[in-house]
Amino acid sequence: MIKAGIIGGTGYTGIELLRLLHNHEGVEVVAISSRSLNTQRVDTVFASLAGQSDLIFSLPDDDILNTCDVIFFATPHGVAMEGAGAFIEKGIKVIDLGADFRITDAVEWSKWYGMQHTQAKLLDSAVYGLPETNREQIKKAMLLANPGCYPTAVQLALKPLITNKLISLSGIVADCKSGVSGAGRGANQAMLLCETSESLKSYGVSGHRHHPEIKQALEILAGETVNFTFVPHLVPMIRGMQATVYVDLLDENTDVRPYFVDTYSDEPFVTILNDGTYPETRNVKSSNFCQISVQKIPNSNKLVIMSVIDNLVKGASGQAVQNMNIMFGLDEKSGLSSIGLLP
Amino acid sequence: MIKAGIIGGTGYTGIELLRLLHNHEGVEVVAISSRSLNTQRVDTVFASLAGQSDLIFSLPDDDILNTCDVIFFATPHGVAMEGAGAFIEKGIKVIDLGADFRITDAVEWSKWYGMQHTQAKLLDSAVYGLPETNREQIKKAMLLANPGCYPTAVQLALKPLITNKLISLSGIVADCKSGVSGAGRGANQAMLLCETSESLKSYGVSGHRHHPEIKQALEILAGETVNFTFVPHLVPMIRGMQATVYVDLLDENTDVRPYFVDTYSDEPFVTILNDGTYPETRNVKSSNFCQISVQKIPNSNKLVIMSVIDNLVKGASGQAVQNMNIMFGLDEKSGLSSIGLLP
Amino acid sequence: MIKAGIIGGTGYTGIELLRLLHNHEGVEVVAISSRSLNTQRVDTVFASLAGQSDLIFSLPDDDILNTCDVIFFATPHGVAMEGAGAFIEKGIKVIDLGADFRITDAVEWSKWYGMQHTQAKLLDSAVYGLPETNREQIKKAMLLANPGCYPTAVQLALKPLITNKLISLSGIVADCKSGVSGAGRGANQAMLLCETSESLKSYGVSGHRHHPEIKQALEILAGETVNFTFVPHLVPMIRGMQATVYVDLLDENTDVRPYFVDTYSDEPFVTILNDGTYPETRNVKSSNFCQISVQKIPNSNKLVIMSVIDNLVKGASGQAVQNMNIMFGLDEKSGLSSIGLLP
Amino acid sequence: MIKAGIIGGTGYTGIELLRLLHNHEGVEVVAISSRSLNTQRVDTVFASLAGQSDLIFSLPDDDILNTCDVIFFATPHGVAMEGAGAFIEKGIKVIDLGADFRITDAVEWSKWYGMQHTQAKLLDSAVYGLPETNREQIKKAMLLANPGCYPTAVQLALKPLITNKLISLSGIVADCKSGVSGAGRGANQAMLLCETSESLKSYGVSGHRHHPEIKQALEILAGETVNFTFVPHLVPMIRGMQATVYVDLLDENTDVRPYFVDTYSDEPFVTILNDGTYPETRNVKSSNFCQISVQKIPNSNKLVIMSVIDNLVKGASGQAVQNMNIMFGLDEKSGLSSIGLLP
Repeated sequence: MIKAGIIGGTGYTGIELLRLLHNHEGVEVVAISSRSLNTQRVDTVFASLAGQSDLIFSLPDDDILNTCDVIFFATPHGVAMEGAGAFIEKGIKVIDLGADFRITDAVEWSKWYGMQHTQAKLLDSAVYGLPETNREQIKKAMLLANPGCYPTAVQLALKPLITNKLISLSGIVADCKSGVSGAGRGANQAMLLCETSESLKSYGVSGHRHHPEIKQALEILAGETVNFTFVPHLVPMIRGMQATVYVDLLDENTDVRPYFVDTYSDEPFVTILNDGTYPETRNVKSSNFCQISVQKIPNSNKLVIMSVIDNLVKGASGQAVQNMNIMFGLDEKSGLSSIGLLP
Repeated sequence: MIKAGIIGGTGYTGIELLRLLHNHEGVEVVAISSRSLNTQRVDTVFASLAGQSDLIFSLPDDDILNTCDVIFFATPHGVAMEGAGAFIEKGIKVIDLGADFRITDAVEWSKWYGMQHTQAKLLDSAVYGLPETNREQIKKAMLLANPGCYPTAVQLALKPLITNKLISLSGIVADCKSGVSGAGRGANQAMLLCETSESLKSYGVSGHRHHPEIKQALEILAGETVNFTFVPHLVPMIRGMQATVYVDLLDENTDVRPYFVDTYSDEPFVTILNDGTYPETRNVKSSNFCQISVQKIPNSNKLVIMSVIDNLVKGASGQAVQNMNIMFGLDEKSGLSSIGLLP
Repeated sequence: MIKAGIIGGTGYTGIELLRLLHNHEGVEVVAISSRSLNTQRVDTVFASLAGQSDLIFSLPDDDILNTCDVIFFATPHGVAMEGAGAFIEKGIKVIDLGADFRITDAVEWSKWYGMQHTQAKLLDSAVYGLPETNREQIKKAMLLANPGCYPTAVQLALKPLITNKLISLSGIVADCKSGVSGAGRGANQAMLLCETSESLKSYGVSGHRHHPEIKQALEILAGETVNFTFVPHLVPMIRGMQATVYVDLLDENTDVRPYFVDTYSDEPFVTILNDGTYPETRNVKSSNFCQISVQKIPNSNKLVIMSVIDNLVKGASGQAVQNMNIMFGLDEKSGLSSIGLLP
Repeated sequence: MIKAGIIGGTGYTGIELLRLLHNHEGVEVVAISSRSLNTQRVDTVFASLAGQSDLIFSLPDDDILNTCDVIFFATPHGVAMEGAGAFIEKGIKVIDLGADFRITDAVEWSKWYGMQHTQAKLLDSAVYGLPETNREQIKKAMLLANPGCYPTAVQLALKPLITNKLISLSGIVADCKSGVSGAGRGANQAMLLCETSESLKSYGVSGHRHHPEIKQALEILAGETVNFTFVPHLVPMIRGMQATVYVDLLDENTDVRPYFVDTYSDEPFVTILNDGTYPETRNVKSSNFCQISVQKIPNSNKLVIMSVIDNLVKGASGQAVQNMNIMFGLDEKSGLSSIGLLP
């Protein structure tokens, strides 16, 4: 039984980790920390656990964390950067659900996250945890950078096209839509039900932190510079994310479907939908699946790729568990076999 | 491995059975029927299953159903009444998620459901499947009447008070609130998002089919006549149900909490919340749990009981699986251990 | 043209006043104050006004407020109490959308609002502004206490029954449901979309500030003590409120409908629906109407009254404008003739 | 007082016309027709009107329609095509909220709408009713083709760029998002709350009826062929629409803002937001306004234009009233001055 600890378990990725690991037969959560909620029962904060868990929030420096086999950081950026090293030195694997180790260029990271990156050496050792592009490295990782939600949806949409050199690398547009849970559980006026329900808006249009992460990943796939426009939108729903990606085919007559099918044929969590069937975010709600459709626009070289995930599962905690499974040599689907909650 | 068949699998209780049984290690769904969708792949109708199931809708008289150990009827009323007998004669257990066998008085049933009850003998043999009141009989049942959603929430709220004779049996009021999925998946103008979202209403105030079911159950608990007012409300959400029940304590000074704790101490799916903590329907969303709080109104003999369930799980398909587990001698929690989806 | 000022215009009742008065031909809003937003354009905070208003937030002690004919306080409790007097001395009428002058007993008020009531004399002069019960006094008011949302819905539901002495005054139950906007626009974790959407809960069951306000009002109508249970619920929608009120008829055979029709026949904003038609909160969304239905429960002396309002309009800002119209001798419907926004 | 008739008043554009005209001082709705609801009171179908209207549904050939000054067709396609001529011959102006007269090429129309266009002569006489591009012709129109919702949002987003020849006409992408009311009020399983709430999806990706309408309009503006990709999305909200439009600037250094400000400086219903402020659909909910922002993407020639409307107001019934005002020489803002309903 793998012993897991969660640092910063008061947000949505924290409770989602608890939910998923509750169903995982090979893992036990033995510690969860929160400075603000120290000594409180977890099930008084997250009442979905009432009667099902005796966990109590501890301090992030509680010794029990050092008895774990794996530590999940579900913290604001900057925290994992400072805390990860001590665990790794003790042989404890670290999975950071935050952004501290996603961007390999520390200067670029600092620009977007507004603080210095103090752990250049750790950053070098971190493995970017998108299993569909990086599984072999993940197996050996001690420090795993769990991808952002938008980057996950966009990379899965584009991988077959970029690796097979089917599209122009200039002018890619990713119009992305996310449920509100992506904004976190903090007390934020802009995320009140009365401010977000029955409305849709763009945000971060002039620049969003996931842009450099996506650009870096696409350029690794492409082996060259990628010109990429990314506009996220806030959608009045709790969970769910769609990337609608617009690309120009180099050859208008390419049948791209076989490339998608081939790329993901062995992937347990990526499903290519039948032609003419478009994904709906609800179909992957609460599950770790990504569903993808492609549609060629008639009389044009434009191709539209639609990719949906649950931003809290494949876009965060589910992918973290998938990565943990890979890192510990478990069945990659352990704890993640549930299908989406419909309706 | 128990072989299960589902008759009438095109609605919300059907897909919910598929979702729950997908996680059940001891059961395999080998057949699912629908006249209208015969020969279609199930995952084209319920895309949450895309890539995860090869089931194909068959006709309700397909022979494969006769190879099952248990048949779930997820059909409109009248269908299970006609079809259940043939399976039972073959030794196949039947669980009816509909209303055909819930009301023991065939005349009363006919009044509420607008058709003759043709199977008086079957009706006599049916067991009402609320495990918290009827577990021993369920173990031996061949024909199980799965309770309605409102009746489940209300009975669990009232059982400790009625069996311990703590309240007046006249003047009980149950003000109930349900998500829209309770109205089913049929094309119904009144259940369009634009007709139900951002609104709340009462319905069935002058009489609702769950009233006689609840009244019958409460009177069995009480051993005498119960005067009971029931008003359901439609709430703009997909899943979730709360019964807010108002009763008059016979003795204003009774501390009712110990009776609730005691009644449900061994129940795997009923949780009594701490004093001062009220349930929220979201905390049981997607799970089989029922969470209950009680609150005495100061300077009065009025007691308020709040009981929440997911209407599609403990209020329908989850309770059906729980009953199946009991009927087959499995661990009652098999396939049902997940906690609620939060947020 | 009446000049209006708004103190505390940064919340939902503030923007709702702006919206309603924008459509009022006889009133101009000349000042709106907010300490935190001083000097900001109102249309940068409430973008529904973009291009339609040049108002700028000022300080609450800005001299321009003294040039007004009427001041609306849309402030947390305690603010109007301290500020109203100075305006009234200058002959400026004051309408308090908060709770400072609703409860006539200062001691009782202090108990519920957690501070001393410092203005006993002002409190004595305040008029409770429910036009349907108090129109003549409102005409002469200099200081108007605008009713709470729940109290408005409940009083309108009960007035015909209490004034005509048709029901028992013990055991009245009001199970009330409100949209989330009633909780205000403050940054409050519990009111995030992800915390309130797709869920329903009771709150304030052991005691809510609107309880004494309702009790006081009902006892004035009754001329005697009223025993009243009030349980509010939070519903996942922005606007809308329903009171579902359960009472015991003194005579089971009373036809109560004529009493409702008669009581409200001259009221511009109260509509009694046809028998068998139940109200839906959406039908009054954005409007100042209250729609009411009554339903006798068969074989019982129980009567259910359903009363719906928009909590921000008839439950707050719309009623404030209605009161203003009465206080200034305008047509009571000025600025309030719009029907509900459907869908 | 202008007498208005509505043919096909049972859907969302019908009730929205009734709501808007209820507030219009110069117009009276004297007739509303529906075959299916003939003889029923309108306020029993749309209870927002309860007590506020005595209108009764009549047959579409009722003589009272011939006494009108203007007829609004709020009907499925094909109906206005057959019915409009008779009114026009009598000198009655006709405004078609449907699609029968939007596409000038009858063959193209037939391809998209699946029926023959039988009224070539009427089609020639029809005026496309986007006031911001066509006001002078609208003034003289007897037959007005009210634009589609998506076409309205997209044209307003692109007009300043195309008329001023600032962008490439190949590769324009309009990623559009609509609330569910755009799908109408018919009993449609796919539009149930449980099928659309808490989800987002693309639809009509391979071809949508609004594509040829938009393409035609853009090509009129440009005077040449426009290559245009249009992908609509369904958003879980009742009202609201955003077009997020991606274009390539011919000169990366162009400051486009002055072109937008200049184009719309005299327009009563188009608002250009401040730089860095993005529109939210809620800010125009229930109003006839269109709010637009532009954002240049750094280090690229890509420009993003965000345009929001209420699909039922500026996208349908509000624009129809605006057109009526122009056609009858009324103040263009009559009945349309309300600001958005926030929250």
